[in-house]
Amino acid sequence: VERLTRDASQARVTPVILSGGTGTRLWPLSRRDRPKQMLPLLEGRTMLQRTADRAADSGLFAAPLVVTAAAHADEVAAQLGEGARLIVEPAGRSTAPAIALAALALDPRDLMLVMPSDHLILQPERFAAAVAHGLDAAQAGMLVTFGVRPTRPETGYGYIRRGEAFADGVFRAAHFVEKPDAATAASYVESGTHEWNAGIFLFAARAYLDALAVHAPDILAAAQAAMAAPGGSPARTLPEPESFAAVRAESIDRAVLEHADNVVVVPVDMGWSDVGSWAALHAVSSADAAGNSVTGAATLLNTHGCLIRSEGPHIVAVGVENLVIVATRDSVLVVPLAQSQTVADAVRRLSEDRPELL
Amino acid sequence: VERLTRDASQARVTPVILSGGTGTRLWPLSRRDRPKQMLPLLEGRTMLQRTADRAADSGLFAAPLVVTAAAHADEVAAQLGEGARLIVEPAGRSTAPAIALAALALDPRDLMLVMPSDHLILQPERFAAAVAHGLDAAQAGMLVTFGVRPTRPETGYGYIRRGEAFADGVFRAAHFVEKPDAATAASYVESGTHEWNAGIFLFAARAYLDALAVHAPDILAAAQAAMAAPGGSPARTLPEPESFAAVRAESIDRAVLEHADNVVVVPVDMGWSDVGSWAALHAVSSADAAGNSVTGAATLLNTHGCLIRSEGPHIVAVGVENLVIVATRDSVLVVPLAQSQTVADAVRRLSEDRPELL
Repeated sequence: VERLTRDASQARVTPVILSGGTGTRLWPLSRRDRPKQMLPLLEGRTMLQRTADRAADSGLFAAPLVVTAAAHADEVAAQLGEGARLIVEPAGRSTAPAIALAALALDPRDLMLVMPSDHLILQPERFAAAVAHGLDAAQAGMLVTFGVRPTRPETGYGYIRRGEAFADGVFRAAHFVEKPDAATAASYVESGTHEWNAGIFLFAARAYLDALAVHAPDILAAAQAAMAAPGGSPARTLPEPESFAAVRAESIDRAVLEHADNVVVVPVDMGWSDVGSWAALHAVSSADAAGNSVTGAATLLNTHGCLIRSEGPHIVAVGVENLVIVATRDSVLVVPLAQSQTVADAVRRLSEDRPELL
Repeated sequence: VERLTRDASQARVTPVILSGGTGTRLWPLSRRDRPKQMLPLLEGRTMLQRTADRAADSGLFAAPLVVTAAAHADEVAAQLGEGARLIVEPAGRSTAPAIALAALALDPRDLMLVMPSDHLILQPERFAAAVAHGLDAAQAGMLVTFGVRPTRPETGYGYIRRGEAFADGVFRAAHFVEKPDAATAASYVESGTHEWNAGIFLFAARAYLDALAVHAPDILAAAQAAMAAPGGSPARTLPEPESFAAVRAESIDRAVLEHADNVVVVPVDMGWSDVGSWAALHAVSSADAAGNSVTGAATLLNTHGCLIRSEGPHIVAVGVENLVIVATRDSVLVVPLAQSQTVADAVRRLSEDRPELL
């Protein structure tokens, strides 16, 4: 594995993009073989490309390192072009092991900017400023997280309670909880002191590995075994499958962040969305005067507040409101925007009845 | 042209099926090249086949005579099989000229049972009884219509006011109005004395031609010119195009029935529907416990009162009510059942933007 070497005093950051997800919440657009991050959900570049674009300033960032699944490796390489390096996970084991693979592929002194590949940041300049704010803390060995003001009692995210100031624009993470229950999440939103963990992290490779050694030594050991003599090439690293397959699936939140005492948070208002539902996509999409966000062939009459998206068939909507209507070559979805999170239930049903459609 | 000849005292009736329509109200299922009558709207046989089935008793009925357009002739022949004879209209000119072509192809003494090809009769045995009731009147030279109890102030139909009794189950048509305005239609529905003209007629060929000679001699003359030396074969008659193209387009209602004094009506409750909208189709379709009528591949969750129909794509509907969702290979329609008559507006728009979809 090629390791970046440089003067430790000169902060150069490797973007580590996690592209292992196989989300089903944007079905029928997202599929097993074409997950959300591969799609141009907003016009133009795909979510993966937008993620790489956010860390493309060569004065600060090295070439990106992408942790992905074998099924998606070629598409990742095609979308990011030359320069991007890949680590191909032998199996999906959530974020803690994935980030460990990346940390072990880098020089221990390297800073890593870990980013999910399928989130949206509408104001990337604010994100860049927040990263700049966190650099000193990361170089000092802290685990830097980025906090987004919660707008609803979401139970699927991690929450961070902001503690005392650590540096300019950087605070100690006083408390960290992933996926609280609904009542707890509601109390967090009301408190005004909790923020969503945006799933973006900045730290030195060594700091993360050290934290793993303390809080999840089994994950560290399995990752080290998998990366001791990996296969592949410098452009595409293949960790040893058996060692990695044995590791438990665990998020970085649960494995490290909830336990470590060197976690800080940089609050940032950057138009962040995990685009975790059709409603979330509608919220960040541009809409016409009637509130309709339309992509692809469609004819609308007396239709308001809808998300209409076609990959081929011509959609005609007449007299409907606040609906999601998505058509692909083989599937059509119709669901109220307010219920778009229930698409997961439909996908579960399809996985039994029509698995070829997933 | 082959003419049926027989003893005039023995009533044998030729079913005359009008299959010239190119309805757009069931778009995207119905298309220019595959109109409503060609479709199996209910399970099994197509609307055209069901129409022929209604007059298949060989003790009473001769082989059917179908008046259709050149674009649909092959499909009509394929659907009805051997025995059916076709008259291929050089151009669509509404019902009065079409029926004139059929009357001229028959022996003047033949009785004709004129039927639209795209209506539904859920209780065909009641229809057969009504036809039997009308036979004597038709043989006596009357123009027999069939009246259906109106259930709404429809402005697209003809209304017949029932007059004095003419025979058992047969009444004089005291007044006849096609397509009244909304207020008039409402007064007709309230009156209890008006019935819908089901568009089905029983009369001797000579009686219709005589009525045309009095009330629409131009239509009779044009039809006679077109049928003086037609082309084609006994199985497929081709009226002379130039003569026929010159005739005015007029319904039998306006050309004859509103003026003639020898019109009678046979009231009949037979589960009649012209299936003129998706809502009308939903009303006559069988539905599951949640009120959904589903044809083709679909997965429904928490969905009620919907008409779901696919010709290929898998439709997933979650949390919706009283919607029409129709998917074909190239188009998707979503409209509330209660607004399904507005599909015509959408089709009008498509005829400008995407005429290839019609």
